[in-house]
Amino acid sequence: MDAYEKIISLAKRRGFLYPSYEIYGGEAGFYDYGPLGILMKNNIENKWREFYLLKEKFFEISTPVITPYDVLKASGHVDEFIDEIATCKKCGASFKVEELKEGKCPICGGDVEKGKLNLMFETYIGAKKKEQAFLRPETAQGIFVDFPLLYEFFRKKMPFGVIQVGKGFRNEVSPRQGIIRLREFSMAEAEIFFEPDNKKHENFDMVKNEEMLLVTENDEEFKISIGKAVEKGIIGNEALAYYMAITKNFLTSVGIDEEKIRFRQHKKDELAHYANECWDAEIYSERFGWVECVGIADRAAHDLEAHMKATGVDMRAFKKYDEPIKVKKKIIKAKMDVLGKTFKQKAKKIREELEKIEVGDEVEKIKVTVDGEEIELGREFFTIEEVEEMETGKKFIPHVIEPSYGIDRIFYFILEHNYKETEKEGENYVLLTLPPEIAPVKAGVFPLVNKDGLPEIAREIEEELRKNGIMAIYDDRGSIGRRYARMDEIGTPFCITVDYQTKEDETVTIRYRDTTEQIRVDKKKVAEWIKERIG
Amino acid sequence: MDAYEKIISLAKRRGFLYPSYEIYGGEAGFYDYGPLGILMKNNIENKWREFYLLKEKFFEISTPVITPYDVLKASGHVDEFIDEIATCKKCGASFKVEELKEGKCPICGGDVEKGKLNLMFETYIGAKKKEQAFLRPETAQGIFVDFPLLYEFFRKKMPFGVIQVGKGFRNEVSPRQGIIRLREFSMAEAEIFFEPDNKKHENFDMVKNEEMLLVTENDEEFKISIGKAVEKGIIGNEALAYYMAITKNFLTSVGIDEEKIRFRQHKKDELAHYANECWDAEIYSERFGWVECVGIADRAAHDLEAHMKATGVDMRAFKKYDEPIKVKKKIIKAKMDVLGKTFKQKAKKIREELEKIEVGDEVEKIKVTVDGEEIELGREFFTIEEVEEMETGKKFIPHVIEPSYGIDRIFYFILEHNYKETEKEGENYVLLTLPPEIAPVKAGVFPLVNKDGLPEIAREIEEELRKNGIMAIYDDRGSIGRRYARMDEIGTPFCITVDYQTKEDETVTIRYRDTTEQIRVDKKKVAEWIKERIG
Repeated sequence: MDAYEKIISLAKRRGFLYPSYEIYGGEAGFYDYGPLGILMKNNIENKWREFYLLKEKFFEISTPVITPYDVLKASGHVDEFIDEIATCKKCGASFKVEELKEGKCPICGGDVEKGKLNLMFETYIGAKKKEQAFLRPETAQGIFVDFPLLYEFFRKKMPFGVIQVGKGFRNEVSPRQGIIRLREFSMAEAEIFFEPDNKKHENFDMVKNEEMLLVTENDEEFKISIGKAVEKGIIGNEALAYYMAITKNFLTSVGIDEEKIRFRQHKKDELAHYANECWDAEIYSERFGWVECVGIADRAAHDLEAHMKATGVDMRAFKKYDEPIKVKKKIIKAKMDVLGKTFKQKAKKIREELEKIEVGDEVEKIKVTVDGEEIELGREFFTIEEVEEMETGKKFIPHVIEPSYGIDRIFYFILEHNYKETEKEGENYVLLTLPPEIAPVKAGVFPLVNKDGLPEIAREIEEELRKNGIMAIYDDRGSIGRRYARMDEIGTPFCITVDYQTKEDETVTIRYRDTTEQIRVDKKKVAEWIKERIG
Repeated sequence: MDAYEKIISLAKRRGFLYPSYEIYGGEAGFYDYGPLGILMKNNIENKWREFYLLKEKFFEISTPVITPYDVLKASGHVDEFIDEIATCKKCGASFKVEELKEGKCPICGGDVEKGKLNLMFETYIGAKKKEQAFLRPETAQGIFVDFPLLYEFFRKKMPFGVIQVGKGFRNEVSPRQGIIRLREFSMAEAEIFFEPDNKKHENFDMVKNEEMLLVTENDEEFKISIGKAVEKGIIGNEALAYYMAITKNFLTSVGIDEEKIRFRQHKKDELAHYANECWDAEIYSERFGWVECVGIADRAAHDLEAHMKATGVDMRAFKKYDEPIKVKKKIIKAKMDVLGKTFKQKAKKIREELEKIEVGDEVEKIKVTVDGEEIELGREFFTIEEVEEMETGKKFIPHVIEPSYGIDRIFYFILEHNYKETEKEGENYVLLTLPPEIAPVKAGVFPLVNKDGLPEIAREIEEELRKNGIMAIYDDRGSIGRRYARMDEIGTPFCITVDYQTKEDETVTIRYRDTTEQIRVDKKKVAEWIKERIG
């Protein structure tokens, strides 16, 4: 068994991950989080919120997974979120083109037919299947379409960040990598809105010495501080670099091995349709090698611009200058005498429309619409004058930096990086060295024996811990050694044992998972003691 | 403006709820949780987990929203999750039949055509649209199909409970009630597995004196203690009654007005296809009257039985008797002499198959399959004998009690029940009296003036609170009175002001939202002080 098999087997046996719909033969590309899995996943997501909500002071929103056609047509996903696929003429199986073996079916060797597949799951809203919709391929679009409301919420101050944690969907052609390639997955995304010409970050100094392993678009791999990488122009701007550093900090805080993280730059032909520059945080794993887990992209103005164009709604922000500046402008002056003669009562309305128009340069003809009628006006009706005006600020479409996290992959790699096999008394012994904050169960509570009032005291401690929001599990089955082993295998950092001494001096033993060291603690202080250690 | 309009207006203005896809003209049946809304919703869901995960000691799982056809065919949803609809021949609009006005279109009065509509959103898995699937109409089925794994996880001990918190989908014909009738909604469901003949609850005594307002299936409305309701057979069993009481406790703990909760029994013709008995927790609202927010159903063995039948997988649990009991059984004895003569070498295999079969009663013919061949055997080949055997336990399909919560409706009703309008200095003044645990923002932090170092101290306090996981917002804009007003309107329970005295004695004022009372607290103890008050 390789590491993946060992972990997936443990994950199923102990309730971290279940293959979805197993009694129906299973469904490729889907996985369930079991009882321990979802505890751990919730811990990871809450830790992520600690970074982006509490520390970065972003705000979260939550938008539907069902997304109307128009939104994803505008964003480019209808036309661009596509895989080149090949279907075997002999056995009928479908593949991504890159999965083919010498142009033939990788299963039966048959000839294939090539085609394209949009990767979005399709559905319809309403009774009569009139309105096409998709399951969102990313949570980001829900944030972009809310931009005008969010801009108000943040009191029109840039930069600001909005996050979303939730499901994303990708109708993969042939997912064959278990939890690593899912059709329905959990994402955590942050969209941070910047002024286009100011992608500096106010806290950049705090991360600039962070050493990162980079792989550039030319496949050069080296370690460099994030500050130097920006200085040398390897990373395009401070904001992008800052969120790369934050990403590394987050990943190590949830238990990913620092030595197994690198940041790889997308090559030009690999960039998503919306991205200007993108760095993937890749995590190393035994079976899969380096795997993309986080994408940190500079989406520039792509999305806001697209939605503005599609809807006509103004998605621009306004920046007030420190003091008004003089600008030269070309404006239109209507010739009222000529207009009056030609258009009579309409002349006044035409003048109003005409003088609203800003022109960049000389023009010969201008069209205006008055009372539904389109009227073309030649230069006989207007002059163009250059004037100086005081401008108090400018309107612009914000740029977006986006760190986008794939939670399921991170979940799996945390398990892999913390899976330790040793031997105990000649037997294979498994330890999950999960950070206490991430571990699904924080404490096992055991009575040394099932008599003399010890179970009652242990139950009380379990209740007390749960009242304090600490996930604790009472276990009285088998020897203490067996109970420790069961808890070590699921990564429980602390085990509390009630013994005869507890009845004398009110102390219990607490055993550390990783060192097996034991200390005695006042039973009334156990909840506090654990709280301090689980963040 | 009625209460609904006032609240929806506040909710949009302050970032609780946004109409989805508004820049695209909006999409009926969908709502976004805005920056404050999702904080509050997460608080509600975490409070729910406190009840069902920590106190009840259930476990959570998380399964996909995309559900294969076979699963929902077996559960009955493909055939039964249907609305009778009517489409207007004149204007083309569709309605539920009960929305018609005297049989005519409620919009234009035109004649209608009746039909049926399955309410599930449809999609397809994979490249070639071969495999039909649906977006789940409830989270419950994900739990049922995992039953064999979950039964193992709970060490085969009944009763046990499994929860799921997540999205559900219902392709409503014509949703016209905003947040009250969504096509994509948030649910929190618990499925509790019981022995069919033992729906007692070990903690029933703790809730039996809870007074509940009930409306029975005969439309009788009265207050009664939950204990008496079970005694008198008004509620079918203790387990159902227990979760009704827990539901009431949960609802009041998140801020629903106790006087506006009642439990209404489903009439026979109103029961879902899977339910034997069901009580809805209804919440009263100004515009909508009594609205179903939680359904507490006895689903009996419906779902496990259905999936067992569809898959052939044994979904039964095993109950060991305290001591083995004698049972009479009818078993088959093969007549080897006759079998041998007729079937030669096959006789032994036939005997093996034959003697595996249990018969309830006398039978004349039995079919067995040997090496793929089906063989029918008459009574000349076997005898039926009654024997006494010791049985150590029995197998059974567990029954399920299900409390199913609609989170979005609860969210809205919390806002409505806590929306208080008063006057201050001649102006309309709005206060949201949310429980501190549920409030999106726990503390506003203000410098009295924007100079003399007060802003720096206030910023430090904000940081300290955030480090402690407390959502705090710094605000230095406008008068203190305006800042209090903004915080009162979003239900922030505590406002902290840094003033000149802070520089002298290191204390700050904390103002209570509901009483406007102010006290002084050591600035280093503010985080602790708030933590104690937000659970």
